[in-house]
Amino acid sequence: MAYLDHAATTPMLPEALDAYVAAARQIGNPSSLHAAGRGARRLVEESRERIAAVLGARPSEVIFTSGGTESDNLATKGIHWARRGADRRRNRVVASAVEHHAVMDAVEWLGSHERADLEWLPVDEAGRVSPESLSAAIEAYGDKISVISVQWANNEVGTLQPVHELAVLAAGAGIPFHTDAVQAVGQVPVDFAASGAAALTVSGHKLGGPVGVGALLLGRDVVATPLLHGGGQERDVRSGTLDTAGVVAFAVAVESAVKTQQEYAARVAGLRDDLVRRVRAAVPDAIFNGDPVDRLPGNAHFSFPGSEGDALLLLLDAQGIACSTGSACSAGVAQPSHVLLAMGADDGRARSSLRFTLGHTSTAEDVDELLAALPGAVERARRATAWKSPRQS
Amino acid sequence: MAYLDHAATTPMLPEALDAYVAAARQIGNPSSLHAAGRGARRLVEESRERIAAVLGARPSEVIFTSGGTESDNLATKGIHWARRGADRRRNRVVASAVEHHAVMDAVEWLGSHERADLEWLPVDEAGRVSPESLSAAIEAYGDKISVISVQWANNEVGTLQPVHELAVLAAGAGIPFHTDAVQAVGQVPVDFAASGAAALTVSGHKLGGPVGVGALLLGRDVVATPLLHGGGQERDVRSGTLDTAGVVAFAVAVESAVKTQQEYAARVAGLRDDLVRRVRAAVPDAIFNGDPVDRLPGNAHFSFPGSEGDALLLLLDAQGIACSTGSACSAGVAQPSHVLLAMGADDGRARSSLRFTLGHTSTAEDVDELLAALPGAVERARRATAWKSPRQS
Repeated sequence: MAYLDHAATTPMLPEALDAYVAAARQIGNPSSLHAAGRGARRLVEESRERIAAVLGARPSEVIFTSGGTESDNLATKGIHWARRGADRRRNRVVASAVEHHAVMDAVEWLGSHERADLEWLPVDEAGRVSPESLSAAIEAYGDKISVISVQWANNEVGTLQPVHELAVLAAGAGIPFHTDAVQAVGQVPVDFAASGAAALTVSGHKLGGPVGVGALLLGRDVVATPLLHGGGQERDVRSGTLDTAGVVAFAVAVESAVKTQQEYAARVAGLRDDLVRRVRAAVPDAIFNGDPVDRLPGNAHFSFPGSEGDALLLLLDAQGIACSTGSACSAGVAQPSHVLLAMGADDGRARSSLRFTLGHTSTAEDVDELLAALPGAVERARRATAWKSPRQS
Repeated sequence: MAYLDHAATTPMLPEALDAYVAAARQIGNPSSLHAAGRGARRLVEESRERIAAVLGARPSEVIFTSGGTESDNLATKGIHWARRGADRRRNRVVASAVEHHAVMDAVEWLGSHERADLEWLPVDEAGRVSPESLSAAIEAYGDKISVISVQWANNEVGTLQPVHELAVLAAGAGIPFHTDAVQAVGQVPVDFAASGAAALTVSGHKLGGPVGVGALLLGRDVVATPLLHGGGQERDVRSGTLDTAGVVAFAVAVESAVKTQQEYAARVAGLRDDLVRRVRAAVPDAIFNGDPVDRLPGNAHFSFPGSEGDALLLLLDAQGIACSTGSACSAGVAQPSHVLLAMGADDGRARSSLRFTLGHTSTAEDVDELLAALPGAVERARRATAWKSPRQS
């Protein structure tokens, strides 16, 4: 099997799984006062320090959550609620048009349910938000904006956003800036303090840690209303029993991903560049989507005009190739990608797209396997589409 | 060490941990369409079916969450939002005065932040909610109530609530009834369909599963607004990548806990009864709190008049006994338990209480160890209090 869907989830590192097992065998709730509880608490706090150290954060800025979706929801809803609660005029949420659904749908809910005004920052053909568009939004409504959210890197087409520039603009206007860095940590350098962001989302299972664990890095002075109320864990921002084993495994994975990022990126980008070159040679009219340079090292995203991405995915799957038409989360519903549409692609191009994402277990053989299967699959998918089209029109 | 704090967290079953490891070694996001994704999806759906089968639910009624706190927040806030959204007059939330903080604080937030009217059902000396008090609330405000939440069993004093009677009353008035059964599953028989509840919270780490995984059983016709928006997983009620390994381990633990419940309860209640008898003999003025009969099999909760629970906990800890003054979640903050206060205890009695909770690894030796240490610890704690009191007055 060639697994080319690391952006959906990447295998857990053996050392992270070992750490999980060792911690899971130790009893104790980190909130308990007795020796067993204190032992668990120590494991959690050591993990917090390890994560903070490699991500440029203070330990107290690491809020453990159940993963990327929760962190994104906490950042957008939580900061919006807190800021709007303090000043009712701050009722405008700004986000990019190419956010992951965990940000996009949370923000849309703030619009539909909480009556927030929404503003979606447009992107260029490469999927990149321009700092000018944020400048303009701040100029027009600066004192009305509660929170701004722009991803570090796009989960579909892999384009990197100018996060630092955007964060500086937001900070200049005194507006908390959140960035979903789920796809970025371990792939490109990510430093919370240097980024200028007020909040940053990290997920475990995208970087070799367990599913169900993540963090929101939240600046010390940034106030967020909790999504989950209860025991008052995590600075009272996120209640719920701390998952000691999950947190320990997450820390092992974050540390490993960040420390090996440079050599990882060089190796994986090499494989990816080979993949892109060979796909273009095999399917000359394939369109390579996203920024050709400023992109995630493991991401290759194409449109194959005249074919359906879903059909292609299944044809490749039948030959043992695992890839995606976009975000795994919305799989099952055949809708054109909002990311491609925001980049100006028409419906047909958006629907004909496939994402190949490499990761820490990827090899040259995976690329060979894909290239052995792809040309035939594209041809078959095109024939199916050509056969279907007249009947549909 | 004698671990007598199973209500805070109980050791993961070896078979649950093995299941976690096996599933974590299998790659695939359950939302992905390729073979790896479908394999992960199959593991999740089999787990859902196993959990549903032993808890009297339909598979589609099992919504996986990050644990008890999230399930409680989703049930209370989510159902309130959905019901109030459909009918603005339904702005009243009813809960018992002895709920876990995950319900209590979520409900209080609905009051302070969402301007809901709140009603706290009183309890008797044993910590039990009377169906009459719910009847009266429904009679007075039935058409204004959005959701009712009463726990299955109290996490501090172990008292079982008349959940079925309460659920029937709620259902008769067409009001969704949620019950936090975190402490109950595996300890007493729990059947979702038979209970009459519209929603029921289960947590993994209280019954031998992993921390960070739980479920909300949510009736098919019960509408809840999501807390976490995103990819649309779990009937669109709870987004976020499904934690395949965690879910598989959770299912193993739920199934084991429910299937062994009867013999477990008999064995553990025997140990507990022995513990209670011997504590009363050793400390004759100790007050046994909670319902003497209708209580969790593993729970023994005492007040030791004239001592501070916190001091007692630390003195016992020094001798290798792990216990709690109440909910682990609010440990660290020395406040008298809201549960004891609601039961009519005065501040002194509330502050002098200790909870011993037995579980699947408990033995007669644990009880022996406790009894060897307790009388001396109580004496020392009383001396410390007697010495402190005049200086404080």
